[in-house]
Amino acid sequence: MIKMVSQIIDPWGSTLIEDYNKLIKDFHLDVFDVNLFPEPNRIMRRNVVFSGIGLKKIADAIKNKKPFYVLSGIMPSGEKIHFGNKMVVEMMSYFQKQGAETYILVADLEAHATRGISLEEARNRALKFHIPAYIALGLDPKKTNFYFQSDNVKVMNAAYTYSKKVTQAQFEALYGNADPTRIFAALTQVADILYPQFEKRMPGIIPVGPDQCPHILLTRDVVNKMKKEGFHPPSGIFHRYTPALDGHFKMSKSRPHTMIELPEDPKSACKKIKRAVSGGRETLEEHRKHGADVERDMTFELLKQHLIEDDKELDNIYNEYASGEMTTGELKKIGCEKMTGFMEMFEKEVEKARKKVDKLKFIT
Amino acid sequence: MIKMVSQIIDPWGSTLIEDYNKLIKDFHLDVFDVNLFPEPNRIMRRNVVFSGIGLKKIADAIKNKKPFYVLSGIMPSGEKIHFGNKMVVEMMSYFQKQGAETYILVADLEAHATRGISLEEARNRALKFHIPAYIALGLDPKKTNFYFQSDNVKVMNAAYTYSKKVTQAQFEALYGNADPTRIFAALTQVADILYPQFEKRMPGIIPVGPDQCPHILLTRDVVNKMKKEGFHPPSGIFHRYTPALDGHFKMSKSRPHTMIELPEDPKSACKKIKRAVSGGRETLEEHRKHGADVERDMTFELLKQHLIEDDKELDNIYNEYASGEMTTGELKKIGCEKMTGFMEMFEKEVEKARKKVDKLKFIT
Repeated sequence: MIKMVSQIIDPWGSTLIEDYNKLIKDFHLDVFDVNLFPEPNRIMRRNVVFSGIGLKKIADAIKNKKPFYVLSGIMPSGEKIHFGNKMVVEMMSYFQKQGAETYILVADLEAHATRGISLEEARNRALKFHIPAYIALGLDPKKTNFYFQSDNVKVMNAAYTYSKKVTQAQFEALYGNADPTRIFAALTQVADILYPQFEKRMPGIIPVGPDQCPHILLTRDVVNKMKKEGFHPPSGIFHRYTPALDGHFKMSKSRPHTMIELPEDPKSACKKIKRAVSGGRETLEEHRKHGADVERDMTFELLKQHLIEDDKELDNIYNEYASGEMTTGELKKIGCEKMTGFMEMFEKEVEKARKKVDKLKFIT
Repeated sequence: MIKMVSQIIDPWGSTLIEDYNKLIKDFHLDVFDVNLFPEPNRIMRRNVVFSGIGLKKIADAIKNKKPFYVLSGIMPSGEKIHFGNKMVVEMMSYFQKQGAETYILVADLEAHATRGISLEEARNRALKFHIPAYIALGLDPKKTNFYFQSDNVKVMNAAYTYSKKVTQAQFEALYGNADPTRIFAALTQVADILYPQFEKRMPGIIPVGPDQCPHILLTRDVVNKMKKEGFHPPSGIFHRYTPALDGHFKMSKSRPHTMIELPEDPKSACKKIKRAVSGGRETLEEHRKHGADVERDMTFELLKQHLIEDDKELDNIYNEYASGEMTTGELKKIGCEKMTGFMEMFEKEVEKARKKVDKLKFIT
């Protein structure tokens, strides 16, 4: 019988399952139910999206064709993005297709304050790369409202106001400290998250990785403390990290040979895939006999999370590899081909999107 | 020999002298030297202005006719101001006449966040009362640049940026906590204080009561941490509080019968003066014999700090009262007359100034 990828257990081993479960437990999150939403996308179907909060509200809005919004931010530091950003865009694109009003803010103030990039440089980078990259990955620019934090005095004013709703102790519990920049960044994010509701109260969904979860919770708490304002507490939908190629929890720039960025030269990416942790056995003989330990294989994980859209195609690879019919070398070859195809597509689409930037709707 | 009021020792008794001296010592402030500036005004001559930081820089700018600025904020909560505000305006007016570029910001965001007043209400109050009151007290509206915090995105953006220059520990040392609203308010004030230098670096002076001293120190610290930005660390000039009529350190709304606000019905003000702590003796006989204990007398303090401009007139009253020639009743009568004259003038001038508000220069 063909095994379905959606039934594959968590590929990071029990420790990491525990990490995600701990998050769900600590923050009282919901376990993600793939049946809640119509036509789930690749990462929803494959359990990469693992959790959420307030999802029923969004499912109802979709079902009843009521207004809702999806929002995310771009941090325009550096000149690359990563697979985590790709997942955010895929989730935004999903909700955009389901009818969500779409907002992208450029966190130029945060980039300036925390990374020392000038506001001008941050703006240039966002226009030249980050926004085109988001469009290349599936965001419909015609249906998206963009703004720069530094242009949006309403957001900054609201952040100041919301500061009264949060205590130092609460910050320390959520973030481990009450560092001044942390407070500015977090409260500005709270204001960003609620900004689409300033004119019109409606549910909203924020797709994020686990590290951004506290911002959603903080915003929900601020909303609860301003009951008579009538804001909808924002919903959150959380995806796992794309693991590093050495099997580590999360790709990190501190271990560049285990991380693939967007864009990356396909040759370099393929070289990294060659050295990635595999599920192959010690000898070919053993491999043929026992089959691969697919859950350990980071190349397969890349295919599953990012590089193969078609479930059947992925299932076939899974079964061939798990049975030992496909070798690790063959799997890595597929990984390299798919990665090359993806990077070529990505660079071409970024180039195309760059030409559309002049026509975007910027809120000022 | 006639005793000069400027030589009178601190009227709040030794404990309070110690409080001000402690402030000077703790924060490494300079003791105010009345000879530093040309044509010192009433509160400078009478040692009500008691301390400062970076004053030499301002004295040099005046002497060499170099650009410098004076800045203060209006908190548009309530519909009254107090004698502390009056002193701030007198100091601003002094430096304005000495050639300072003058900035007044309306802290509508702070009023909104900390006092729950809507931004619209805060704006209305500032336009209808606080700004006219400042003009009534001596600010030249034609030479003053006004702005509302909520209009000034540059200030909010700068506040966010400066947050990186201050640690949680530093906030806790200066303010006793790292409360989120405190952090927003303090860093917004830092940005306000530096705002006149955004376009042109120049020395600036901020006249404040002792409670605002930490903001000046914080700003100087932020400037020091951004050396290559080339900001001048702001100078501060500090005045004592107007004591409450019961002799308490500072007037406070929590003890309304010991506080006179601006405006206040002269009848009500006179009633409070009648009940104020006096320097008179137990019996008329003793009073004639020993003279009044002028330093204890809160009516005299009001005359000295606020109600008598002419030094000779004040010296005469001092001598007559100290010698026992003038009774407490007679002194309080003078106090009441002067207060009535002041309040009538104030209300008339506010009314006149209100008509000029449309023509003010607001930065947006």
